[in-house]
Amino acid sequence: MTENPTACLLIIGNEVLSGRTRDANLQFIAARLGELGIPMREARVIPDVPDTIISTVNEARARHTHVFTTGGIGPTHDDITSECVARAFGVPWEVHEETRALMAADYARRDPPVEFNAARMRMATLPRGAVPIRCDETSAPGFSMGNVHVMAGVPRIMRSMFEALAPSLERGRPILSRTVHAHGVFEGNIADGLAAIQSRHPALDLGSYPYYRSGGVGGGVALVAKGTDEAEVEEAARAMAALLREAGGDARDGEPAG
Amino acid sequence: MTENPTACLLIIGNEVLSGRTRDANLQFIAARLGELGIPMREARVIPDVPDTIISTVNEARARHTHVFTTGGIGPTHDDITSECVARAFGVPWEVHEETRALMAADYARRDPPVEFNAARMRMATLPRGAVPIRCDETSAPGFSMGNVHVMAGVPRIMRSMFEALAPSLERGRPILSRTVHAHGVFEGNIADGLAAIQSRHPALDLGSYPYYRSGGVGGGVALVAKGTDEAEVEEAARAMAALLREAGGDARDGEPAG
Repeated sequence: MTENPTACLLIIGNEVLSGRTRDANLQFIAARLGELGIPMREARVIPDVPDTIISTVNEARARHTHVFTTGGIGPTHDDITSECVARAFGVPWEVHEETRALMAADYARRDPPVEFNAARMRMATLPRGAVPIRCDETSAPGFSMGNVHVMAGVPRIMRSMFEALAPSLERGRPILSRTVHAHGVFEGNIADGLAAIQSRHPALDLGSYPYYRSGGVGGGVALVAKGTDEAEVEEAARAMAALLREAGGDARDGEPAG
Repeated sequence: MTENPTACLLIIGNEVLSGRTRDANLQFIAARLGELGIPMREARVIPDVPDTIISTVNEARARHTHVFTTGGIGPTHDDITSECVARAFGVPWEVHEETRALMAADYARRDPPVEFNAARMRMATLPRGAVPIRCDETSAPGFSMGNVHVMAGVPRIMRSMFEALAPSLERGRPILSRTVHAHGVFEGNIADGLAAIQSRHPALDLGSYPYYRSGGVGGGVALVAKGTDEAEVEEAARAMAALLREAGGDARDGEPAG
């Protein structure tokens, strides 16, 4: 177990920055990393521009225990993540023989067989020293290069790669979370009380999130306490529930429905 | 019209980095900025940590024509965006008299009246020199400070603030986009042809995005051409459609349904 591991996510792709594609990976990775005790401290969406990818990967891997990337490992000209990671580490980008053989066998088995052309060979080409991340969804792998974990952008494939990788990650203490909510309570009425609870529990991360019903009418506030000490998280949750009741709300455990 | 304006989005909030909340603002802002000819070149999700917010705002505003922020302008202790922007610009953070008066009038009109307490007064407190962004959804404003545009994190309020701000933004040439797609075509079969079209049109941004049907069976590929020259975008779209037909697909305009 690592003392205070941190993670950074790099979402690589023009399609997210243009609004064409809505990212569907950040929330999954963030939640799973929290369970593994590796809090995500930063996420960036960056374009398919080599210098940007290289410098961002290098900055992030120096700063964080783990760096995860999504996107840009397919066969087309805009899939440049793998090559850029090789350049970031200053190592050759070369055909990974075991991966080539596995992909060739997979393509030969298909009906009709899939041509293992130059474009697809890019997906068997990895930074020297990379460890492939294999999953059930595709024979084209992700890979770990040092503390940089390169995964597909397609959510189904990314999740499969993440779960294949997860057992090997250095973990920290799981981040525990308790939420209480109350309808009809406004943030502005509980802000001072919540700040007081936060100052009694500096090791916790307390957040306040208003919610709204359709049309913006009604709603209330959800208060969240996060931390690694279960007893302290529970104590803060009880104090937050009492605060919501004082403000006239019917405090309930968990997130508001809908 | 500015020659080559660029934008950066800063999503400020622990709740996005923990996976509690799924960001719902990036895609909207990215798409609207594309229409305004202000391409988003970078987006970052950062935590509610003052030094991180201050340094990221300063880095982004030096690098981009426009910086947009979402989140952290409510009344609670974790709402620190406004104060941090003041510190980033080195100006006092002080009650904005006109905003205070508007909020006081709004709160007095409510039934029952809302108490204008210290927590809510934080929302009337702005960096000196900031221009409020007022919208119909709330009397607590966003604001522009130089090229930094600070908006709420709640999507309904953010959108209203964005549309209030949009007419005043320096624009560039709108980014035009054309998409063609074909079922049953694999990326690996059209990658070389697409790279050839890209090299004939270096001013355009061509992207290739596989799509999948439920269960991962079936699907195809969508090819996207983006640029500011309508005739060139059309020419590339015709070439991409021909490429998909050569690969045996029934090329259709637009994004695949579902």
